[in-house]
Amino acid sequence: MREYLIGLDYGTESARGVLLEASSGELQAEFVHAYRHGVMDRSLKDGARLPPEWALQDASDYLEAAQVLLSHLATFVPTDGVVLSVGIDFTASTPLPTLSDGTPLSSLYPAEPHAYVKLWKHHAAQSRADAINAAAGAYLRWYGGKTSSEWLPAKAAQLALESPELWAQTAYFIEAGDWLVWQLTGTQTRSACLAGYKAHYQASEGYPSDPFGIDLLSRLTQPVAVGSSAGRLTTQWLETTGLKSNPVVAVATIDAHAAVPAVGVSTPGTLTIITGTSACHMLLEPRCLEVQGIAGIVMDGIVPGLWGYEAGQAGFGDLLNWFIRSFPNGPNDGASFAHYNARAADLEPGQSGLVALDWWNGCRTPLDDTELSGLILGMTLTTTPVDIYRALLEGLCYGTRRVIETFESGGIEIERLVVTGGLAERNPLLMQLMADVTGKPVNVPNVTHASARGAAMHGAVAAGVVTDFVDAVVRYGAKQYLSYRPR
Amino acid sequence: MREYLIGLDYGTESARGVLLEASSGELQAEFVHAYRHGVMDRSLKDGARLPPEWALQDASDYLEAAQVLLSHLATFVPTDGVVLSVGIDFTASTPLPTLSDGTPLSSLYPAEPHAYVKLWKHHAAQSRADAINAAAGAYLRWYGGKTSSEWLPAKAAQLALESPELWAQTAYFIEAGDWLVWQLTGTQTRSACLAGYKAHYQASEGYPSDPFGIDLLSRLTQPVAVGSSAGRLTTQWLETTGLKSNPVVAVATIDAHAAVPAVGVSTPGTLTIITGTSACHMLLEPRCLEVQGIAGIVMDGIVPGLWGYEAGQAGFGDLLNWFIRSFPNGPNDGASFAHYNARAADLEPGQSGLVALDWWNGCRTPLDDTELSGLILGMTLTTTPVDIYRALLEGLCYGTRRVIETFESGGIEIERLVVTGGLAERNPLLMQLMADVTGKPVNVPNVTHASARGAAMHGAVAAGVVTDFVDAVVRYGAKQYLSYRPR
Repeated sequence: MREYLIGLDYGTESARGVLLEASSGELQAEFVHAYRHGVMDRSLKDGARLPPEWALQDASDYLEAAQVLLSHLATFVPTDGVVLSVGIDFTASTPLPTLSDGTPLSSLYPAEPHAYVKLWKHHAAQSRADAINAAAGAYLRWYGGKTSSEWLPAKAAQLALESPELWAQTAYFIEAGDWLVWQLTGTQTRSACLAGYKAHYQASEGYPSDPFGIDLLSRLTQPVAVGSSAGRLTTQWLETTGLKSNPVVAVATIDAHAAVPAVGVSTPGTLTIITGTSACHMLLEPRCLEVQGIAGIVMDGIVPGLWGYEAGQAGFGDLLNWFIRSFPNGPNDGASFAHYNARAADLEPGQSGLVALDWWNGCRTPLDDTELSGLILGMTLTTTPVDIYRALLEGLCYGTRRVIETFESGGIEIERLVVTGGLAERNPLLMQLMADVTGKPVNVPNVTHASARGAAMHGAVAAGVVTDFVDAVVRYGAKQYLSYRPR
Repeated sequence: MREYLIGLDYGTESARGVLLEASSGELQAEFVHAYRHGVMDRSLKDGARLPPEWALQDASDYLEAAQVLLSHLATFVPTDGVVLSVGIDFTASTPLPTLSDGTPLSSLYPAEPHAYVKLWKHHAAQSRADAINAAAGAYLRWYGGKTSSEWLPAKAAQLALESPELWAQTAYFIEAGDWLVWQLTGTQTRSACLAGYKAHYQASEGYPSDPFGIDLLSRLTQPVAVGSSAGRLTTQWLETTGLKSNPVVAVATIDAHAAVPAVGVSTPGTLTIITGTSACHMLLEPRCLEVQGIAGIVMDGIVPGLWGYEAGQAGFGDLLNWFIRSFPNGPNDGASFAHYNARAADLEPGQSGLVALDWWNGCRTPLDDTELSGLILGMTLTTTPVDIYRALLEGLCYGTRRVIETFESGGIEIERLVVTGGLAERNPLLMQLMADVTGKPVNVPNVTHASARGAAMHGAVAAGVVTDFVDAVVRYGAKQYLSYRPR
């Protein structure tokens, strides 16, 4: 009987599913489904206008995506095949209010904005985050000293204080990833990753005390380590998707964090960098060290049994996209990038005299301040767009170096970088500069759909298909790397 | 008998001549002649390569230009007309070595680079300027504490030390403007403007002592105030040009300085700003104040009887040309400027959050350091080229404000700005921002060929056609201004 794994990766606009062969990890099928209502940041689905900075989603879209993806992937499982596990990753913090049976309040009050899922980029709760930061709870030392509107407590406070009637009906305030696992298994099981990185849960201290007297704690539940089983797919889901066994469903994880084992990392000493519009830096470490300036430290948050450290550069690919929009040079973005990469590679380090500070989207590590902005220093009459492009590439690499130095100043040694994401694959010049500027070898894994594959690996660990994440990495993690040595 | 004035304006690439009617100042004719050998900055006219940073000219080109311009303008003088005076302005410092009779050494040694005119932008003598600055003579206090390779002493030292044989044959080392007046009149007469601003001559102290022991002083002569007569056009020039009288020739002046009376300024309280690739700021003042950070203070240097103060922004139009080259948006530069001006005008002050420091070409006032460079601060993902353009406009205006504050900190009051040059005429947004940022009314004179007209005014004063520059300004200076009030 042939065995399979499913990984579901829930992003901002769409969800992706992958089907892997369980012994080899070979990709069998892959599918993407865009959410029916997308991101509601201007109006609700009934057309009612939303205030600025709001960003909502409809939880029923997640169920529809699960239905579509699981049904589609099931068609690729041979008649003698069985799906052993389903793993799920989700963008976060993306919480919603539900009744005690998991019913989203939005299905009862579709005209109430506060009844919906608040997407990670819903920034209308910043004043609540500011109030939490002003109170300066000791637990914030695990989180670089700050929370933000992107985290669960600020979003809960906004709902509770602006819509007390809805809050009174809210039995649970829960991350969409955990909620989806609940819907798939029939049992609520929260993730140590989601709780630790997005609700300030620490195993030694629990959740922080309630900052606004809104009785938030009764609406949360105790989380469990990632890689644990949250139960099995319910009979109803088996019937509607055509899956023929009831696979184990893993505890949810965050999308970036899911990618770590997929790119082949399950042990300390390697900084995993997920590049996209921003960059997320993750590191595994047996010791719990209070590193000043990083975004979060969570036990069991990335893989069980190790502290997962997270840091970030608030702008990464976004900066280069800004550059290409500002200085187009070709029929399309790809041609422009090719033009500039070819010419920027001919420049010596520092040749143009330009220095760029990469804070176009604020600074995450080490200052955690979205109000900061970038600069270009050293402009002369002979400065060219190529010079500026090269300075931005160097600036991004120095931003990464600053992250590495932040970790190192906290006593954590980093031996190599594993960098993944579109830029890592498409921009060898940037990767070479990354090695040169950081003085660390850079490995770019040959892996597609890293988050979805990582989610499937969580399922494999949860179902006991492999003994642990070290074993999962050997079996399913990236095997081949393009390597860049510091020059 | 109808009376006329001629003004000759010697620039870097070409010379311009104007013929004015003497009673009204009305422009009768105007002509431009490009120098036969242009700027020799790569090779001599025989093709021999020049080292980097050299920029030479052939003095015979100046005579040819005078011949062409005077002959051409003479054809516009009616048979009953007479030209009363010829005034000359010249870029500086642009000195040449001559025999005692004025013969340029280049006519004797055409294969010797050091025998030629060293143009103002000949920068190969910077090490000599550095040595002079290191000696820190007290006279440098009149010149912001520094000399440079663009000034006469460094150029003399380079010639004397690198080619002692030619220096031994050099009876005079003389600014091309003074040399041209000598050739036109048969008598050597040096200008207090050229000597004061470009050879550190001060009426109270004379020339500085010889910094390299090269006996420079014997090769200079005592200067006289601008607006003085240097003699009359020789018979030979009358014959070859067709001019029918022998007009008075005025002492030479510098091109930017010549523009001051032409734009209507002959009294204290007004800062005259000549905008071009860079900006030159000039001010008249009865008191001699040691203002820190300005470029030069010279008695009789702009108009007789007043101290002429000079300051500068090393990059001005150059910055905007850099911007348009970097961010073209239209079929040509004019269309691009129109595009950006229309959109930049819609931005509120500070709206984009960008701040630009206008040191793309170094800083003249107040730091006098060509090695400095510019910066743009406040870059975000939403920064547009229009934002950058607006920040550059504002940066240029703040650069001007810094010049004004430098004067004011030295005890000099400035009531209004008179701004001339292409940018003043073509960029009303920049002029409005200039008024807003400086808090001073900005007047843009309606005057064409300001330097050449100013040169003609020097002739009129020298010939006694008018009693003084105040009278000259009333008769020939700008009458109409476009005014911008601070908002």
